[in-house]
Parts: sequence; structure tokens; C-alpha cells
Amino acid sequence: MVSGGRVEFRVVARRAAARRGELTVRGRTTPTPAFMPVATQGALKGIPGRRVAELGFGALLANTYHLGLRPGEEVVRSLGGLHRFMDYPGLIVTDSGGFQVFSLAQRRAVDDGGVTFRSHLDGAAVRLTPERAMAIQHALDSDVAMVLDECPPAGAGRMEVAAAVARSLDWASRCLAAHRALSDDRAVFGIVQGGRDALLRREMADALAALDFDGLALGGVAVGEEAATIRDEVESFAGMLPAGRPRYLMGVGSPRELAAAVRAGIDLFDCVLPTRNGRNGFLFTRDGVVKIRNAAHARDPAPVEAGCPCAACTNHSRAYLRHLFVADEMLGPLLATEHNLVFFRRLMDDLRLAIGGDAPADLGWIEQRY
Amino acid sequence: MVSGGRVEFRVVARRAAARRGELTVRGRTTPTPAFMPVATQGALKGIPGRRVAELGFGALLANTYHLGLRPGEEVVRSLGGLHRFMDYPGLIVTDSGGFQVFSLAQRRAVDDGGVTFRSHLDGAAVRLTPERAMAIQHALDSDVAMVLDECPPAGAGRMEVAAAVARSLDWASRCLAAHRALSDDRAVFGIVQGGRDALLRREMADALAALDFDGLALGGVAVGEEAATIRDEVESFAGMLPAGRPRYLMGVGSPRELAAAVRAGIDLFDCVLPTRNGRNGFLFTRDGVVKIRNAAHARDPAPVEAGCPCAACTNHSRAYLRHLFVADEMLGPLLATEHNLVFFRRLMDDLRLAIGGDAPADLGWIEQRY
Repeated sequence: MVSGGRVEFRVVARRAAARRGELTVRGRTTPTPAFMPVATQGALKGIPGRRVAELGFGALLANTYHLGLRPGEEVVRSLGGLHRFMDYPGLIVTDSGGFQVFSLAQRRAVDDGGVTFRSHLDGAAVRLTPERAMAIQHALDSDVAMVLDECPPAGAGRMEVAAAVARSLDWASRCLAAHRALSDDRAVFGIVQGGRDALLRREMADALAALDFDGLALGGVAVGEEAATIRDEVESFAGMLPAGRPRYLMGVGSPRELAAAVRAGIDLFDCVLPTRNGRNGFLFTRDGVVKIRNAAHARDPAPVEAGCPCAACTNHSRAYLRHLFVADEMLGPLLATEHNLVFFRRLMDDLRLAIGGDAPADLGWIEQRY
Repeated sequence: MVSGGRVEFRVVARRAAARRGELTVRGRTTPTPAFMPVATQGALKGIPGRRVAELGFGALLANTYHLGLRPGEEVVRSLGGLHRFMDYPGLIVTDSGGFQVFSLAQRRAVDDGGVTFRSHLDGAAVRLTPERAMAIQHALDSDVAMVLDECPPAGAGRMEVAAAVARSLDWASRCLAAHRALSDDRAVFGIVQGGRDALLRREMADALAALDFDGLALGGVAVGEEAATIRDEVESFAGMLPAGRPRYLMGVGSPRELAAAVRAGIDLFDCVLPTRNGRNGFLFTRDGVVKIRNAAHARDPAPVEAGCPCAACTNHSRAYLRHLFVADEMLGPLLATEHNLVFFRRLMDDLRLAIGGDAPADLGWIEQRY
């Protein structure tokens, strides 16, 4: 158990490497393993913050890059911080903005001090340093801040990855110092990079573990690899993270990847999959993905998934949902997003139950279908 | 009181020409005067049917033209009808499709038998007759059907309007006969046309009043006139409709027009104003319209309207709503739509209260602001 005033992480059950627990920061608690939906711009698509919590999500991820550019972290601060801004009472984790800088921004230039880039919104020149990344997250008032790291492209060679690891380690120390100077109750997590190189990963994990981080994350996984590779990587890298602190696998993933990662000992996840797929009419069910636009559903009175407690499945037919998507009615993406979120929440409920609970859940369907 | 088994319309209070009452069809009741939001394609934008009822709307309007083309009335019928399809327990009124044929469809040709047009979706040739309009509405299973009428363009001359009135009268009789042959518990309303010509309007109103319609509507009002003209027309035309049956003013309107029409004795309204304006970031308040995209709201912690019980005003700031619109987050239009609907519901609550209620409401703000 880590309980340094900033983070309380309590493991209540284990099954092989998997663990079930509770993470508390600033009085806000989520059971773990937890899936955090992504409120990129401070909104979870059509779902109000309060409703996200009601759907059973004790934590979510918001994007520092997007919110820092628009509306700007000082606007969010002046309005009482992100919890109040988006009316979400749960734990808020913010990323550092680094991933978006390396994937979305234009004309990037990295140096040891930080990274300079052009905003994807208006082309304005922006400078992001480790200190600035922490200051923005502090202004947003998230509960868990992430360090700024350099994310080399998926095909980068070993030298390039090693250089990024070295720089990211240096930045991590600077982030930690800057964070502690700004706050004594908010948490900060380090991020282990190193591409697919197990030696580099191990080196960086050990170096970060020696520092006073409240938790550690795996970055740079699921950036284009095959599903089987992702599972292998997660299994190999998860154990490198210290067992006593929360472990966060960033940007993952599909139900099957989540299940595999939970087995490997991961506690936290974030991914846009349920919301993005929902908006596009791909609905998760235990019998596989339902493509709701398909003509096969045109007259189907059945719900998307029998037994699902979401509003779409409780109150509407597949035929109605299909009609909404075909007719371009915003209620379609909205109901589909909520369904997918509820699917992911139930999946995490099942996974937690399977870890030394009263009645181990049957999770065979995950392996069968994803 | 009309209570012929199909419709029960009970007036419980009067104030000059205005009346307060209750309209019941097939066991579904709405207090009147009632504003009916418009679920064009069987969805009220992002608001699920059940929620529309929870927001306090006992009735809504759905569009026969749109639903007949997509998903098709037989699909809706096979799924249990529109109430079940969209999960809305309240009264459903359907228009005849005529208005859309005359405003939206391509290559229209009207003859005494009906109207032939091209679908705006795929250009397919479609024939709509009085009998067919009733058959579609019957298949949709609405509670109140509207007759098919010919809607001449706003600038039509007297001869053209008179010819449309004559044809619409003939169609009205055919609709009534077709409707009664299809159903003995659903209601059908006639529609008075006649442009701005009071004599033609009177003639048509008298002719329709002599028939066995369950209610009468005013069509062809607010099709481009000045606000003052609309109010004059409504005041002059409303009294032509028989006092013992519900009176429905189609496609109107702004808060001020609603208030004026209620004073003139109208019982039912429909309009896309709250939903369409909400989607576009125009929010109704008692202090006038708030254009939420305006930079003035960028740091405003106040709600859109203090005291408004909607989700947007209860849980969010103007600044957050503005951010959602500027960032193109679907939660923005969604919250704004719900706010506007709640505004219209509260307006109707106030208007009903003002008609011989226990405490006459102060409605001066309506005249001041709209």
C-alpha cells in the first residue's frame, strides 16, 4: 500500500499477477482495475460529467494538450478547475500533452529543454517543457498528473529510442520536482518508454521506480503493433513496474487487451475505443461487435445486447438505433456511446470480480470474441 | 367538452379568449395550452423519447413525410408503432406530410387526386393522396392525424389560394372518411388554410367545423410574415375555430407568438425553434436570447439562466457551454437543446397558470423580450 498523503492504493485481492484494489487521490476513489474513458476536450462526447460518474466510472482521462490550447488552462482554473468545469466528481487524470505534441501538432522541434510545435488549431507556436506541462496540469486541477515524455515514432530504431528514453528520464525528474513544488496533495505518475526493447524498458522502469512517483505508467504500447504483440509486450513490461504502486497502461485498449493486461497486473487504462467506436456505429457486445448501420438490423426489434442495462438496450430496438444512424440523428451516436461505455464498465466489473472475488466470473467470452 | 370516444377535451379555466384544459386521446393526456416539440425523424435530436416526457412534454409532433420515406411506415408499424419505436409514452401528433411535400420535395405535381413528387433523399417518385396520407399515419400509429392539405407558397395570389382552399376542403373530407375507416380510437384534425384572406379562412373554417373532425388547426400562418402580422392573423383566425374543440396553430413559434396565440384561444403548438436554435447555440432566457458562442461568455461562471432547472443551468457555466460549442463537442448542442425545451415548457406552465389559475403569473417579460 502506498499512502503518502497524496495517493492511497490498497490491494484487496490477487490472482496470480492480477490484483484488485482501490485508488484514492484527494478523497476521490476508484476501484481498480479501472477503465478511464477519455474526455479529450473536457467532455465525454455527449455524456455530461455527472452522468459519466453515474454510469460507474470513478476516473477519467482529460487531455492537457487540447485543454491547454482551448479553452486554455487559465480559463479552466478561473472557473474552479476541471472537476467543476465539466461537473465530474470522480478522479481526473491528465496526460502531459506530450503524446499529442508528437502525433497531432505541426512542425515539432525537440531539444533537451522541451519541445516547440505549432498548434493544430491555429498554427500558433507553442513551447512545452516539463515544468510547463506540470503547471498546465496543476492549473487544470487534475488529481493525477502525468510526466512529459518524448514519444518516438513506432518505427524508430534502437538509438533513437534510447535517446528518447534518456531525455524522458531527465524530463521525468524535472516534472517530479516541478510537481512537488506546485502541490502536496495531487499525484504524479512517471511513464516508462523504450519501445519494444525489454532492456531499455527495464532500465527506465528501474530508474523511475527509484524516484518518488505515486504510480508508474507504460507508454508507447499499442501504437500500431499486432494484437498478439501488444499482449506479449504488456505481459513482459507490466511486471517491471513496482508492485506497490498503481500501474497504468496508457491508450489501451480492446476488451481482450484489457483482460490480458489485467492478468499481467495492470490497474488503470484509458482508451477512446468505446466512445469513438460508438460514434461510428460499432457497438460492443459479448457476442462480438454489432455494426448498427447494417441493413440486417432494419427491422430487428431486439436490443443491441440482451441484459445490458444501458438506456439504448433497455428502451430501444436495434431497428431504432439503425434508423437514427442512417438518418444522421445525433441521438444515435449518443446512445451508442453510452452503450459502449456501459459495456466497458461491465467488463471491468467482471474482471474485478474474477480476481479473487466471491464468485469468479466466466470471462471466456472475452478470449472468444476479441 | 368533446368526448366522442376518440378525444376528450376538457376546458377547466378561461381568461377572455384564452382557455386552459386537458386533451386526452387513447388514454394519453396533455395539459393545454401545450407546446409540442418536433421529433422530425422520430427523434428529438439528442433527447431520448422517455426523457422528452420526463422534461414535461405530454405531446410531440412527428413528421409523416420524413418517417414515411425513412425508415418507412411499415418498418415502424412492424416494430409496434411510433410510441414504442421512439420510446415516448405521451401523445403523438403526426402531420400529413403535405407541408414538407410543398416545401422540401423536388418536382412536385398537384392534381385533384393528390400530389406526386420526388423524394429529397434519393429522387424516387412518390405519390401522396389524402387516403395514403391517412394510411401512413395509421401505420405510424400516431394518436392525432392531420389531414393532407395543399399549401400554396407565401406570395400566392387570391385565386391560387382560393383554388388551394377548395382542393384542401375536398381532400379534408376524403381524409376524414379514410381515417374513420381505419380507426375508431385515433383522432383526426382538419386544417384551415386560406392565406391571409379572412373571408377564405372563415369559409374554410365553417366548412371544416361542420364535419366530424376531433379538432381544427390553422395552417399557413408564420410562413414568412412579420411578427406583428403573425399576431394579427392569429388573433383574427383563432376565433373562427369552434370553441368546443381543440385548436392547433401549426409551426408556431416564438415565445411572444405563443403568448399572443394563447391569448387568442389556441390550445396546441408545434415548432422546431427550441431544438433548432439550441443546436445552433441560441439559448432562450427570460432576459432575451443568449448567443453562447460569444466571447463574452468565455470566462463566465454563471449559468445560462439563473433559476432554470435544466441540466445545463444546474450543473454548468456559460463558459463551459461556450467551450463545448467552440470545440465542436456534441454535448454543447445537446445541453442547449435541453435548456431550450425546458424554457418552452416553463413558458407554457406560466401561460397555463396565467389563465384563471390560483396565482396569475407575471408574463410581462414575454412582451418585453420577444
